[in-house]
Amino acid sequence: MSELKVVIIGAGSSYTPELIEGLINRTAELPLRELWMVDIEDGREKMAIIANLARRMLKKAGLDVSVHETLDRRAALTGADYVCSQFRAGCLDARISDERIALKFGMIGQETNGLGGFANACRTIPIALEIAREMETLCPDAWLLNFTNPSGMVTEAILRHTTIKAVGLCNVPVIMQKGVTKLLGGSSDFIMQVAGLNHFIFARQILQNGMDKLDDVIDEIIAGNDPLVPRNIPPFTWPAHVLKGLRMIPCAYLRYYYMKDDILKQEIGEANGEGTRGEVVKALEHELFEIYKNPELAEKPQALEGRGGQYYSEAACELMSAIHNDKRIIMHVNTRNNGAINGLPDDCAVEVSSVITRSGPLPLNVAAFPEDTLRLLQLMKSFEQLTIEAAITGNRHTAWRALVLNPLITSGTLLEQALEAVIEENKELMSAFH
Amino acid sequence: MSELKVVIIGAGSSYTPELIEGLINRTAELPLRELWMVDIEDGREKMAIIANLARRMLKKAGLDVSVHETLDRRAALTGADYVCSQFRAGCLDARISDERIALKFGMIGQETNGLGGFANACRTIPIALEIAREMETLCPDAWLLNFTNPSGMVTEAILRHTTIKAVGLCNVPVIMQKGVTKLLGGSSDFIMQVAGLNHFIFARQILQNGMDKLDDVIDEIIAGNDPLVPRNIPPFTWPAHVLKGLRMIPCAYLRYYYMKDDILKQEIGEANGEGTRGEVVKALEHELFEIYKNPELAEKPQALEGRGGQYYSEAACELMSAIHNDKRIIMHVNTRNNGAINGLPDDCAVEVSSVITRSGPLPLNVAAFPEDTLRLLQLMKSFEQLTIEAAITGNRHTAWRALVLNPLITSGTLLEQALEAVIEENKELMSAFH
Amino acid sequence: MSELKVVIIGAGSSYTPELIEGLINRTAELPLRELWMVDIEDGREKMAIIANLARRMLKKAGLDVSVHETLDRRAALTGADYVCSQFRAGCLDARISDERIALKFGMIGQETNGLGGFANACRTIPIALEIAREMETLCPDAWLLNFTNPSGMVTEAILRHTTIKAVGLCNVPVIMQKGVTKLLGGSSDFIMQVAGLNHFIFARQILQNGMDKLDDVIDEIIAGNDPLVPRNIPPFTWPAHVLKGLRMIPCAYLRYYYMKDDILKQEIGEANGEGTRGEVVKALEHELFEIYKNPELAEKPQALEGRGGQYYSEAACELMSAIHNDKRIIMHVNTRNNGAINGLPDDCAVEVSSVITRSGPLPLNVAAFPEDTLRLLQLMKSFEQLTIEAAITGNRHTAWRALVLNPLITSGTLLEQALEAVIEENKELMSAFH
Amino acid sequence: MSELKVVIIGAGSSYTPELIEGLINRTAELPLRELWMVDIEDGREKMAIIANLARRMLKKAGLDVSVHETLDRRAALTGADYVCSQFRAGCLDARISDERIALKFGMIGQETNGLGGFANACRTIPIALEIAREMETLCPDAWLLNFTNPSGMVTEAILRHTTIKAVGLCNVPVIMQKGVTKLLGGSSDFIMQVAGLNHFIFARQILQNGMDKLDDVIDEIIAGNDPLVPRNIPPFTWPAHVLKGLRMIPCAYLRYYYMKDDILKQEIGEANGEGTRGEVVKALEHELFEIYKNPELAEKPQALEGRGGQYYSEAACELMSAIHNDKRIIMHVNTRNNGAINGLPDDCAVEVSSVITRSGPLPLNVAAFPEDTLRLLQLMKSFEQLTIEAAITGNRHTAWRALVLNPLITSGTLLEQALEAVIEENKELMSAFH
Repeated sequence: MSELKVVIIGAGSSYTPELIEGLINRTAELPLRELWMVDIEDGREKMAIIANLARRMLKKAGLDVSVHETLDRRAALTGADYVCSQFRAGCLDARISDERIALKFGMIGQETNGLGGFANACRTIPIALEIAREMETLCPDAWLLNFTNPSGMVTEAILRHTTIKAVGLCNVPVIMQKGVTKLLGGSSDFIMQVAGLNHFIFARQILQNGMDKLDDVIDEIIAGNDPLVPRNIPPFTWPAHVLKGLRMIPCAYLRYYYMKDDILKQEIGEANGEGTRGEVVKALEHELFEIYKNPELAEKPQALEGRGGQYYSEAACELMSAIHNDKRIIMHVNTRNNGAINGLPDDCAVEVSSVITRSGPLPLNVAAFPEDTLRLLQLMKSFEQLTIEAAITGNRHTAWRALVLNPLITSGTLLEQALEAVIEENKELMSAFH
Repeated sequence: MSELKVVIIGAGSSYTPELIEGLINRTAELPLRELWMVDIEDGREKMAIIANLARRMLKKAGLDVSVHETLDRRAALTGADYVCSQFRAGCLDARISDERIALKFGMIGQETNGLGGFANACRTIPIALEIAREMETLCPDAWLLNFTNPSGMVTEAILRHTTIKAVGLCNVPVIMQKGVTKLLGGSSDFIMQVAGLNHFIFARQILQNGMDKLDDVIDEIIAGNDPLVPRNIPPFTWPAHVLKGLRMIPCAYLRYYYMKDDILKQEIGEANGEGTRGEVVKALEHELFEIYKNPELAEKPQALEGRGGQYYSEAACELMSAIHNDKRIIMHVNTRNNGAINGLPDDCAVEVSSVITRSGPLPLNVAAFPEDTLRLLQLMKSFEQLTIEAAITGNRHTAWRALVLNPLITSGTLLEQALEAVIEENKELMSAFH
Repeated sequence: MSELKVVIIGAGSSYTPELIEGLINRTAELPLRELWMVDIEDGREKMAIIANLARRMLKKAGLDVSVHETLDRRAALTGADYVCSQFRAGCLDARISDERIALKFGMIGQETNGLGGFANACRTIPIALEIAREMETLCPDAWLLNFTNPSGMVTEAILRHTTIKAVGLCNVPVIMQKGVTKLLGGSSDFIMQVAGLNHFIFARQILQNGMDKLDDVIDEIIAGNDPLVPRNIPPFTWPAHVLKGLRMIPCAYLRYYYMKDDILKQEIGEANGEGTRGEVVKALEHELFEIYKNPELAEKPQALEGRGGQYYSEAACELMSAIHNDKRIIMHVNTRNNGAINGLPDDCAVEVSSVITRSGPLPLNVAAFPEDTLRLLQLMKSFEQLTIEAAITGNRHTAWRALVLNPLITSGTLLEQALEAVIEENKELMSAFH
Repeated sequence: MSELKVVIIGAGSSYTPELIEGLINRTAELPLRELWMVDIEDGREKMAIIANLARRMLKKAGLDVSVHETLDRRAALTGADYVCSQFRAGCLDARISDERIALKFGMIGQETNGLGGFANACRTIPIALEIAREMETLCPDAWLLNFTNPSGMVTEAILRHTTIKAVGLCNVPVIMQKGVTKLLGGSSDFIMQVAGLNHFIFARQILQNGMDKLDDVIDEIIAGNDPLVPRNIPPFTWPAHVLKGLRMIPCAYLRYYYMKDDILKQEIGEANGEGTRGEVVKALEHELFEIYKNPELAEKPQALEGRGGQYYSEAACELMSAIHNDKRIIMHVNTRNNGAINGLPDDCAVEVSSVITRSGPLPLNVAAFPEDTLRLLQLMKSFEQLTIEAAITGNRHTAWRALVLNPLITSGTLLEQALEAVIEENKELMSAFH
């Protein structure tokens, strides 16, 4: 088995140590030769801190892996085997601005949903496509593991517009999987099938010992025991009738759609108090980097688990290994629909449970959704597809067509003002709109 | 040609004189023998005023038609040829309560849209089904011309659950047709094809002299000349990019979806000022009935045109005549979809341009909608179908599934409270929920 | 109303006098100025005979119309208002060859079905496209009324590959309409709705006086009274259970699919006896032209009605008038599907009952077909679309993919041999295959 | 792990020793306690021979398994864990009669295709449903592994009409899998994905080392190296353009559809020579049972591999073990579609590559078929569904609707005669038709 060159785009992220840990834990499965860290000028300092921590971690693990840090993305991509994309266009300040603009116009402010998700997509997709196009030349056979948000739209943009083998990842289904494991008494001997769009998925069945335990798990959640929620989502209790009625388990992000008013109130409270999620995270990041700087530290610090994105990197390493070793295990990834979810376009990205092979994910077939849920999925996919188009073309009418579909976004004069505010605020990264 | 028995359910409506006028104007086409007016106890007095006015109008026209007024619906329906349904369940007070409850919870308050439309459907559908079931026995071959709101859902409920030949009517496409006539210089020599759901339609093409004048009409509307809006909708200007981008003309009610925030602000202003639309109409109605009482009056008074529902009755009479005389003219009606709009269920009601024959409406085929518009139509139809089911079963979870889909309704704890408030307020007419 | 220039492509056809008669009968509706007859060198003599007959007929009718005969198609098309296409690529000899080749390989031999239909399409489509492309330059606003066979495929090829407004015509639904009129006692006061593909249509409903008379008509046909069959199809009796079971009236050509074996035996009998249909027609044509030559003849001779194509020209004139005068009557034509028949592509041609307007045909919506019938329609449409593609590209594999779907064509080595025989026999007119 | 009761319905089959061998080879995985053999009176003697051979085989393997032979199916089913259904309704004589009747009427005669497949389904489905209904009472949680032909239709009938967990098996994909293994140099380290209907499947992709080897395998087959054909299908060479053009590998049975004429000629030759396949098999069976009788024989004899059904039982044992041990390997089975193949009904049976779990098969998603192939699949599924309905109801018109769709069956008077001949010949087992 030849040795691997792994590239991390956006390596200055505070999550990177988790990724390093994941690679160290899989030494036997993933024979790492070189690790290339890439970031932009603004992230140079953070990347240096991370790279040094990574070197200490690898050394402690007794591994002989060369760690490169560079601002020259093309150098890094050349001949890569796996590329992990985890950059954040505009950094945390852009996230905070998304949150604040949306709230200012009376709408939910969140990094992947509603107006904020739209803005994030418009900033991110052009860069993601640039990377994928470089890969077409420099490492055409490499796998792109994307966990840059909004992960579904970014993955779809790459799959539609380039020839790169991209798989989108999210920690939401990982957390659901771990939560269900807990509720089923610790055994991981079950198949949870999820389906939907990124941050808009539903657990459809939980198969164990020849039975579907979905109703049991729903009962547990209703009973107040809900370990399926990531840290970055404000804790909520699902109304019993919602879970009973849906007969599916909606992912935590679906609270933005099924509990709109509660979330909005909570966000307003936070914005007027401790700060928006982005602001809280920014402070937390600052603390984390102080810890990372410590030259004695040679392992992933406990404190990292306070971030919402836990398990992201875990999932990425597991996916890398599953592909590399043709493991044929079931993971939940963003991949080309190809009919897995009927009623959505074949060539869009969906987040579905898939058998992971050396040739990539083979989605499990998804039984028909109830019509009302399908209608929401279709609506959201139309929003996503128009958003991708707007991100690329900068066409304001396309942007309007996207936004007016989104249940978290109001319409009318206010929307026009909000859109202009978003474009103005993101002048540089939404240059297509100018 | 045998002479006709026509029944008006909800005859105490202030619109009835328009209907009488329409029948008088079509004496040659519609050989009326008996006119039966039906209302409930609460409407007895108004019905009496109307019946007397009708008698004066018919006499003045030199027509020998017997006018019956009764609270006994079964007597009226027996042997009927055409039944016009125009009752309002709970009268104007229910409409006002719908508006006020919605606004209280921060949502748009309107008689056929959003929370108010839901409440109205829940009150109305059980009564409409009762009437249709009586017709199955007493006049199984009669045509039911429904303009009771929400006209689309009421028509669908009847078509799905009874064997009665029902056609739903609305004045919105009539007003669009008249508006386009004006914009095209007064000539009515064109075919405007509309398609969608009741209060959610789009003009898809305007064919005249072998050309599609849609773009010309859109340009006129953008230029500030918009005669397509009924009186009961607050005047608005469509943003140019919306009309240009859609390349269809949305009906005036689509402002509730495309200009949500503006409408909400306007409604709040009205509610705090002159009163809600229902309150304004109630005052207007009072004045109208004072006029109707005048024993000298023997024609439809001019003042009636101040109501938003103008042309309703005109359309009803024209439809009655088109069926009766196999006219094969094109009208815009609510009828069984049967594939006319692809992507909606075959057995749902849609509002589409149809050739009117003695066997009822034959819808013109509708070209595929752009995907994003289709997604909204599908969403709204799911809302409608779940609302109909909730209206019949009183199942709260079904009600939630309906409401959570509607773009004019928020979700979460607030929605649960709003739903309970609606049920409480409509205790008697939403008895299925108790 | 400006005066019209009408062009007839393939004017040397024996049917042309019927077309002339139709135009004469509609003088008030269709103010004809010039009539241009076009044919190829091989048809020059026949065209001259026809043109002279036409001049005598017009003179007798007292009409001042200039009749031009030319081999220069471009001159004829310049500034045309209506173009009637009725040419037969390869003339009757090609038809006879189609019949004989198919029979030689044990398959049904017919001009629009099976192997013969395929060959005919391959000869005809390139020429039809050439004509339509000339029209794009010389008379871009003219209507092309196509009754060149196979009319559905030819119309689809033009609609997909050019911008010309083409409508395909067939006498089969005209004959059905006339047959039903007879069965309903002579009254034409009904709406027969047909839907399907050219030579593959079904009558779906027969509306009269508010009732569907379909079952009554079916009963009449079963009782042995079947006036719905054109002359060029061997007389057959539908098994009662077929009509009862389908609850639709299949057009006469569907006998090729539902009564394959009987037709094949009959064809073999004819081929060994009086000759194939093409051979019989060729003799009949010879007689007709002898009659046409008679300088005393100034009207359409009775003998023409012995041909199977009666009413073709009648339908063409009626369609021309319906468009020209925005008549909004219902006719049965080949036009763009646009969703009229669900389950077939939007951009294919279907044969459906349509309201004829100045802007062309507006198809009536078609209720869902029973699944088994839909499957046949879809199969045949795939055959047609692949045939069109093969006709244009000359790709043998595409040809195989088309042929292997067709229920009248066998598969295997025999098919390969038959395909090569067809290509060889039509060397000149199927040049794309060489 | 509790010990298992396995039931074999139709145990007198000559294939049973392969099943016994399969169970013996999996002793570690499948802890067999009791083996129940069931047959009807006509098969009593054969069953006795098989049971004794089984006892010798089990004894030689040192296994303590009780072998029961009975005509009392209910006794056998009580408390069963796995039920293998391999009965043949009407035995080989019925198969021979199917072949001969079809040939007599000029059609292909085969046990699962065309007229023979129809007859076989009509005989078999009522019995299969009877068994499944008994299971609903006597062993409701047992798995039914069906390899009774026509396996797809039988499985669909059970899945639609009973609550039994049924999986349909076929050796065709097993043989394809083994053939591809050979072509890929012996390595089984690939995933071949198949999809379609039973005896109507296509290999869609062959994934190995991150690449799709489909084109390589196609090239090998074209080069004359085709190990994918079972013994019971006459050897044929696929025309190169078919495989190249389809870009899928059709299963061997698709020769009946793509090479109709060649197969028919071959069958006629055989019927006039060595006998039909059924007649050949009958003779072979006779020999096999002579061998089985040998009291010295204690293993599956080599001679059994001359039958076409080799690997059936191998597949059955592997499936039993995969379910029992939650193996999550990919096998090719007949199961509920649920959207796996878009364009086919959700509730029909399809033959697709699936991950086998303790909860049964989870189909892999299938990418959209090319439209022309999809049309054939849809046609065949309609044929299957109407055949199932006819088998249950005995409705002749339903039978006609089924048969007229099938590309291997002609239509017309001949079909009516053939259908009556089939019904007459199968008087007892097609009692619903009388």
